[in-house]
Amino acid sequence: MKRTLCSQISRHLGDDIKVAGWVQASRSLGGITFVVIRDRSGVTQAIFEGRIEAPAHQSVVEVCGLVRPEKRAPGGVEIAGASIVELSRAEPSLPVDITGKTQSSFESLLDHRVLALRNPRAAAVLKVQAELVAGFRDFLRGEGFTEVFTPKIVATGTEGGAELFEVKYFEKQAYLAQSPQLYKQMLVGSGLERVFEVGPVFRAEEHNTSRHTNQFTSLDLEMGFIEDVEDVMGLEERFLAYALPRVAAACACEIEMTGATVPRAGSIPRLDIEEARAVARARLGHEMPAGNLSPEGEKAVSEDIFETTGQDFVFITGYPVSVRPFYAMPDQRDPSRTKSFDLLFRGLEVTTGGQRIHDYDMLVRNLLAAGLDPAKFEGYLEVFRFGMPPHGGLAIGAERLTTRLLGLGNVREACTFPRDRTRLQP
Amino acid sequence: MKRTLCSQISRHLGDDIKVAGWVQASRSLGGITFVVIRDRSGVTQAIFEGRIEAPAHQSVVEVCGLVRPEKRAPGGVEIAGASIVELSRAEPSLPVDITGKTQSSFESLLDHRVLALRNPRAAAVLKVQAELVAGFRDFLRGEGFTEVFTPKIVATGTEGGAELFEVKYFEKQAYLAQSPQLYKQMLVGSGLERVFEVGPVFRAEEHNTSRHTNQFTSLDLEMGFIEDVEDVMGLEERFLAYALPRVAAACACEIEMTGATVPRAGSIPRLDIEEARAVARARLGHEMPAGNLSPEGEKAVSEDIFETTGQDFVFITGYPVSVRPFYAMPDQRDPSRTKSFDLLFRGLEVTTGGQRIHDYDMLVRNLLAAGLDPAKFEGYLEVFRFGMPPHGGLAIGAERLTTRLLGLGNVREACTFPRDRTRLQP
Repeated sequence: MKRTLCSQISRHLGDDIKVAGWVQASRSLGGITFVVIRDRSGVTQAIFEGRIEAPAHQSVVEVCGLVRPEKRAPGGVEIAGASIVELSRAEPSLPVDITGKTQSSFESLLDHRVLALRNPRAAAVLKVQAELVAGFRDFLRGEGFTEVFTPKIVATGTEGGAELFEVKYFEKQAYLAQSPQLYKQMLVGSGLERVFEVGPVFRAEEHNTSRHTNQFTSLDLEMGFIEDVEDVMGLEERFLAYALPRVAAACACEIEMTGATVPRAGSIPRLDIEEARAVARARLGHEMPAGNLSPEGEKAVSEDIFETTGQDFVFITGYPVSVRPFYAMPDQRDPSRTKSFDLLFRGLEVTTGGQRIHDYDMLVRNLLAAGLDPAKFEGYLEVFRFGMPPHGGLAIGAERLTTRLLGLGNVREACTFPRDRTRLQP
Repeated sequence: MKRTLCSQISRHLGDDIKVAGWVQASRSLGGITFVVIRDRSGVTQAIFEGRIEAPAHQSVVEVCGLVRPEKRAPGGVEIAGASIVELSRAEPSLPVDITGKTQSSFESLLDHRVLALRNPRAAAVLKVQAELVAGFRDFLRGEGFTEVFTPKIVATGTEGGAELFEVKYFEKQAYLAQSPQLYKQMLVGSGLERVFEVGPVFRAEEHNTSRHTNQFTSLDLEMGFIEDVEDVMGLEERFLAYALPRVAAACACEIEMTGATVPRAGSIPRLDIEEARAVARARLGHEMPAGNLSPEGEKAVSEDIFETTGQDFVFITGYPVSVRPFYAMPDQRDPSRTKSFDLLFRGLEVTTGGQRIHDYDMLVRNLLAAGLDPAKFEGYLEVFRFGMPPHGGLAIGAERLTTRLLGLGNVREACTFPRDRTRLQP
């Protein structure tokens, strides 16, 4: 007999069916045994009359029986159980509480992450993220972008030597890619023009905060033939306007479980970094780092924007050359500034982007000014000598986007198995 | 004025338009200059009357002008050029030939990979691959799979210590993930049941062949509640039956450029490994490695299947325990064999899959038998103690699938920037 998903049982009233899943609860009461079964789609209840052994919590079982109406059961039906087979028996005592009744520590839930994900609210985060990422890809494919897969083992760091994990590559010293930045630019110049990549990036950051992990999923895109950085911000606006309602519709149950509200999408306010710094200074009563916002400052600016415009998003623009990487395009109106932006979402930076330099000589000057050796960037620089269009792009941290969308306290909740300063397991 | 793509120009007959792209060819002839421009969509021709400087080959230009009919031009129209602006000038002499007129060496084309991709046939390979991967995801989403992103920095190799790249993870010794195998199994057991991942995997293989790279894109899936390994093979059959016609339709031009034929999809023959070895032995006149096929043997078996059935695919089944990893499910009818399979496609192994062990005690016994320390697999083993459904899965090498589909000689042609025994650049 083919298995029926728990969420589909109410369509099979009067039929003999089979369900399979994890035992969420079971109890025996006056010769009747109730078994609540959870599968990937939801829960259902089976009732056995006569003597059966109540299966252990979290065991995997297969139940056959007749679907009959029962108002108090999920979906208005229950299974009159005819047989139950234990496919995998769970040990009696779980190392963490997955019901949410007693609170296990966050670290302990990460230590036992697979079991923690048995809590539907924890798994809902991963499902929402999968839908956001699918939205990213589908939107970009519709815009003529080609998906690419670039090397994660690289000879030189994107922006010099900091925060790189070292890899022993046979006889050579190599590093894990901090970003596909240089490769996606090269692929724009290869003639693909518009490329995106969804993949892991690696940062050997020493700080262990609720906003950082040492591996995250980067939603990267790069596009040629832009007129200005505005084209890139406009594309991100349109992506959000496409993806947010899509996620709200496809993951309505999951979003409800987390208690989140999906923000309205549309035109996003732009704020110059100097204005943003002034806002943060005024609200917090202290100075911001030069040309930038502290994490606290990002929060303050987001709050201010929300209070004045009702918007959950804000683009911060015009960062100075001093705080942006060597490939950032200077603003011709003020060459100390760049045509770059960050996107803040409910107090957290979720995107960095900008227009890039496409002129070979300017790029080499900037590498030198940043103390980098152009000879080490030869493979990157070549395309700029043989026809490189004006271009720009951005990178969205998938876990940060999910975290802010669902109002989670820690970016690790949006990772299957997070990697941080101290965590290499499971 | 908004840019028009070259492939769209014929829809704008009589309009003033703008195109932008790379100069594929230009020549001046009796006061007239012809400029052929290529963008991501195709080529178009612009004609300038009067004195203009012919732009250099591969420079990036923007051309404005009137679209008029011209039978001999691509799409039956050409642009009567009114203006041409050089956005980026290419140096006069390219380091490789990208027209295909003279043959650059394969290594030299990889050294200058970005320029090599300016040849539309080279870029077509990446576009076909992107469509195959999109097909993989869309098919699996439709089958109730959740996309996941697992750690690429791991504490222990999937199958022991061989072929691992070492990573310095702060104070700890870590490795690059050879496969998401253990994580995808854990996520099945987390309650997600059906998961897939598209991501890089890393193998420190010493051999440098046309079939191997040290990073490749693995199309991984794992599904719970299977009855048998047949369920996994059946899923792959249905994936191919979905994806191959989709690619044939979406990438008709690209496939034509490579001269490939898309195989018919449907039911795929199954051949027991011992039968397959006998076929290979008979055709080649020498012995195969124990319980396995050599690369030459895979070719011979594929040829035999093609000659006898007309099929481009064949599943090889029932590999012995000795050649499969510790998590492979033994066949209860013959415990020296496993419920595993490889898929050969036109002579090359493109998939490895099988049913996995879901019983904790059996798994621990197998780890010990393989000389592995169960204590090092604690994070993996935990879920097997708390309810693990019968499950199985597979991994498809994206570049291999593309290579065979398009009849390419080297898997590196399906990489943006390949990594191999000696290549870490560009």
